[in-house]
Amino acid sequence: MNCLFCRIVAGEIPAEIIAETEGALAFLDVMPLADGHVLVIPREHAARVEEMSTDSAAGVFALAASLAGPVRAAFSAAGTTIGVNDGEVTGQTVPHMHIHIVPRFAGDGAGSIHTIFKAHAADPSALPDVGARIRKRL
Amino acid sequence: MNCLFCRIVAGEIPAEIIAETEGALAFLDVMPLADGHVLVIPREHAARVEEMSTDSAAGVFALAASLAGPVRAAFSAAGTTIGVNDGEVTGQTVPHMHIHIVPRFAGDGAGSIHTIFKAHAADPSALPDVGARIRKRL
Repeated sequence: MNCLFCRIVAGEIPAEIIAETEGALAFLDVMPLADGHVLVIPREHAARVEEMSTDSAAGVFALAASLAGPVRAAFSAAGTTIGVNDGEVTGQTVPHMHIHIVPRFAGDGAGSIHTIFKAHAADPSALPDVGARIRKRL
Repeated sequence: MNCLFCRIVAGEIPAEIIAETEGALAFLDVMPLADGHVLVIPREHAARVEEMSTDSAAGVFALAASLAGPVRAAFSAAGTTIGVNDGEVTGQTVPHMHIHIVPRFAGDGAGSIHTIFKAHAADPSALPDVGARIRKRL
């Protein structure tokens, strides 16, 4: 088994476990962006969100959602940034889907999801065409 | 009703709707970071993730997860950045919880969730203490 996170699921690599459910595992990121930086993963290997069943994804995200409050409260933080780098192109480095939860503080110097992108790059007048294009894929 | 997203839920403000479930609504961001930038929200007002019930959060995130593939495919993208600015301190501007899904492309010049933070700011040797502190809140 070459997948780092599958090896954590299997107990072959130690991790600081925060919570677990039948389908999901939450543990601390060993390269924390802040104290309390938690990762939530599916136990069953899936590189990407779209490789997961809706039930499995719901379970993993539900565990993450249930941890946002405790993670924030444990560090008296003001909020949390919750995010998934879904695909190598987005900066995903471990190819096993994982949700980041990072406590945030006033004056911590960090940005928002929008910081990743720097600018609003698309034309709002295209929204009807864009909507139609996505709905065709559903 | 002063909440922008509650007004979209109520149909008072038009939006390009992508998908809906009993508890969640997905529509296009009117200030898109890329074509196909989708927002997924709970129908019932909640400013923050931790204000939602586990079931409600699971439903909203499940809808978002189910859209990651279609959003990517509709634009032949290579991945998606999925994220929540959870709290004003994180850059949340509309105080009604919303999940961003943004298609990503090779060479699009955007970064990762980690770009928000710039550096790994916490000490990995503190992980056991950090873990204990969060688990106490569960």
